[in-house]
Amino acid sequence: MTADKQVKPFDYVVFGATGDLTMRKLLPAFYYRLLSGEVPDSARIIGTARSPLDRATYQGRARDALKRFVAPADFKEAQVERFLNMVYYVSLDGSKADSNWEGLSGLLSEGPQDHVRVFYFATAPNLYEAVSANLHAKGLVTDDARVVLEKPIGTDLATADEINTGVGKFFKENNIFRIDHYLGKETVQDVIALRFANPLLSAVWSGDYIKSVQITAAETVGVEGRAAYYDTSGALRDMVQNHLLQVLCLVAMEPPASLEADAVRDAKVAVLKSLRPLAGDRLTSDTVRGQYVAGEINEENVRGYLEELGHASNTETYVALRAEVDTPRWKNVPFYIRTAKRLHRKVSEIVITFKPAETNLFPQAPKANVLVIRVQPDEGLTWHLSVKDPQDDSFELRDATMDTHFGPQFKVRYPDAYERLLLDAVRGYPVLFIRRDEVEAAWRWVAPIMEAWANGTVPMSQYAAGSWGPEEATAMLAEHGDTWHEAIHRQ
Amino acid sequence: MTADKQVKPFDYVVFGATGDLTMRKLLPAFYYRLLSGEVPDSARIIGTARSPLDRATYQGRARDALKRFVAPADFKEAQVERFLNMVYYVSLDGSKADSNWEGLSGLLSEGPQDHVRVFYFATAPNLYEAVSANLHAKGLVTDDARVVLEKPIGTDLATADEINTGVGKFFKENNIFRIDHYLGKETVQDVIALRFANPLLSAVWSGDYIKSVQITAAETVGVEGRAAYYDTSGALRDMVQNHLLQVLCLVAMEPPASLEADAVRDAKVAVLKSLRPLAGDRLTSDTVRGQYVAGEINEENVRGYLEELGHASNTETYVALRAEVDTPRWKNVPFYIRTAKRLHRKVSEIVITFKPAETNLFPQAPKANVLVIRVQPDEGLTWHLSVKDPQDDSFELRDATMDTHFGPQFKVRYPDAYERLLLDAVRGYPVLFIRRDEVEAAWRWVAPIMEAWANGTVPMSQYAAGSWGPEEATAMLAEHGDTWHEAIHRQ
Repeated sequence: MTADKQVKPFDYVVFGATGDLTMRKLLPAFYYRLLSGEVPDSARIIGTARSPLDRATYQGRARDALKRFVAPADFKEAQVERFLNMVYYVSLDGSKADSNWEGLSGLLSEGPQDHVRVFYFATAPNLYEAVSANLHAKGLVTDDARVVLEKPIGTDLATADEINTGVGKFFKENNIFRIDHYLGKETVQDVIALRFANPLLSAVWSGDYIKSVQITAAETVGVEGRAAYYDTSGALRDMVQNHLLQVLCLVAMEPPASLEADAVRDAKVAVLKSLRPLAGDRLTSDTVRGQYVAGEINEENVRGYLEELGHASNTETYVALRAEVDTPRWKNVPFYIRTAKRLHRKVSEIVITFKPAETNLFPQAPKANVLVIRVQPDEGLTWHLSVKDPQDDSFELRDATMDTHFGPQFKVRYPDAYERLLLDAVRGYPVLFIRRDEVEAAWRWVAPIMEAWANGTVPMSQYAAGSWGPEEATAMLAEHGDTWHEAIHRQ
Repeated sequence: MTADKQVKPFDYVVFGATGDLTMRKLLPAFYYRLLSGEVPDSARIIGTARSPLDRATYQGRARDALKRFVAPADFKEAQVERFLNMVYYVSLDGSKADSNWEGLSGLLSEGPQDHVRVFYFATAPNLYEAVSANLHAKGLVTDDARVVLEKPIGTDLATADEINTGVGKFFKENNIFRIDHYLGKETVQDVIALRFANPLLSAVWSGDYIKSVQITAAETVGVEGRAAYYDTSGALRDMVQNHLLQVLCLVAMEPPASLEADAVRDAKVAVLKSLRPLAGDRLTSDTVRGQYVAGEINEENVRGYLEELGHASNTETYVALRAEVDTPRWKNVPFYIRTAKRLHRKVSEIVITFKPAETNLFPQAPKANVLVIRVQPDEGLTWHLSVKDPQDDSFELRDATMDTHFGPQFKVRYPDAYERLLLDAVRGYPVLFIRRDEVEAAWRWVAPIMEAWANGTVPMSQYAAGSWGPEEATAMLAEHGDTWHEAIHRQ
């Protein structure tokens, strides 16, 4: 990364600065971008939270966070010192009008006034409006001050509207950066490069060639300490409404006119609006929800969800959906979306299964070509194709795989999603952030599923921790002649 | 290889059995197919040559050949003994009617009469007719006796006709197996599997997507001891008329109706007949010939061709052609064919360069997708594609490569081309052999080039041993906006 990529000097005010997200993700992300030369030395990162800490104490916590969450080889004392010099702290309850606002105002007014000002809300979303109102009342919302909103933006359409309207009273829509860290992942953005820079893929990127799309975000972790919180959300709200639908949009969108933010977001929202609503029988045939029961992961026995939680629950830790994008390009192509806790292996991937060749040239029918975009881990691509079996003198075919592993190939560290997103807010480049209409369209599509699940129309399946999910999800694909990726290409 | 792949018992009579080809290629190929279980124990390999050897002596030579040309791990004493038990020898000058024919007749008649009978001509081609006539006169050409003809089938159309007509008097065309060992190479056959079993490639296999095709067979060796022979032939006759045009046919042919021999050969001959004749100015603009001068290969100084030869010569050790296949599929797609001695690296490969994406989405124009089919060595595929540069926060692109290396992937030894071809003659499956009309069509297309070179219309270029060839060949591609593969993807 060269110095000409350096962003303008900024004041980044983080609400919720003592929280897990700040420590685990935001501070390390800023640090890495300092290392890469993108963060000017005059930039300031101003943490705020209710805890009555002084700056030195907070800097100490920030140092501890880097120590824990930055790779040891990247923890360089001189750079850490440089970084900590940028870190400030104001003890402040952002949701209260009578809190220590003069502390924040003072800090902001004593710095250079040409700094880009960004407020990052890493607090409970029900506080977003109040914090915005206070920032406004204290005169801190300058004309181009940006606000970054962490998920969840609501728990349904109504609550999302409430938050968006609340924040929207004080910030203009084009200054509101709704973060979806999945869009910050390099390999998610790679979908755009793959689709539009490679004619070999552009040529076949439609239902003429593609039989199905699978989007999987599998975790091995359970809910552990977060059980109480998780139980109010569930996999559909926590992962599908935002992350996985965003990935689906990038896979399915029509070519945007440019990579300007609104061109891309227009193309994405068109996909969300084209999602065929799940209704009637399709709610039972095309949605699967489940909870993990006790099982074994990595040779370790783990408890079931309800055991961890300690009481009965109607919250899913597994979701699989069969979505359809109702456009000419994707006629009859199922988009299978799946995410869960306690699955067999941690993997986020996009699996494009092509229609098999229609040919009777070979002794057996060729298998389908499959392109796997490995979002994480081991970022890269695998293409399953058919070649001639070298041990056979007729023309029998054999599966081969072509691979690329981006990290080793480019000899670079793959950056964490937050690194890019944090600075894009400074740059004022919102292409990888979610526009209000996208949030709404996504909630609108998810609504009937939430409703059907809440009223028990769709039964709660069970799956053993360490498995690949409930058998109902296997059956859902089988009905359409499809198979989950891992059942074909053993993982 | 399973036992059900075992071929019928055979008597394989090799003329030229003391020669280099037999020792280096044929005997090891038979041995490997014995190891794989395809050769029944009752099969006989009957060597014939003029040398007055007894069977034991010839078996000793065969053992020495295996020792030299079979991988040490595959040289297994018990198997070698089994193999040598199949090896016979008859001292016989096949071109002479009064030679020891009773020796061969006796051997053939004392064996089981249901053996498939194959005659392999590894002698000078000008003897093929005489040997055929003698075999016929001695009553050894049974109704389905096959004859395998080694290259070169003539040195031009007239001499090829002479040979084909001569042999054709005594063998039916469908019993004549004209060998082109390039077609025995697994990765050449893979062109068929790749094109027709993989929709991702079928979809783009035309001038709509393909910008150019390069077919290269580069050798690092010079002519050394073979200078006198080589000088009568040259790269065009030795490599282009047969091997490289055959590869071109597989790349360019329309989908055959089946993999029956004549369906494939019909499709191939259609390509040969569609090759736009090189005439007039195109002989100078689209053909390059050259001779290597002294240079350095693998840090070793080597002499030039004329120094090795010891006298002046009009024979080329380098050829590069720009061919065009005059069919709708390949309109305006140049097929660059190149082969030479003493190039930088030993490699046979097919390079498909696709048209770059027409998009202005990205900060820079995407580069062309390139698919490399590595015929030899390191059999496999590389796809050069564009992905997002992970070190850039705009959408800059970066070249990535996807690879597969068949040998390591399948954990199999890649067989030598002769292994399959020898047994295909037993099987009576001529799909990988050249039909008479193919030989003729190929000579017909090459004829005006030979003529123009003979009469000096096209100057003889020079290139340093160890380079990638004369600059005229670089210029020939540059004229059409193309570049040899190695100049883009450093090798």
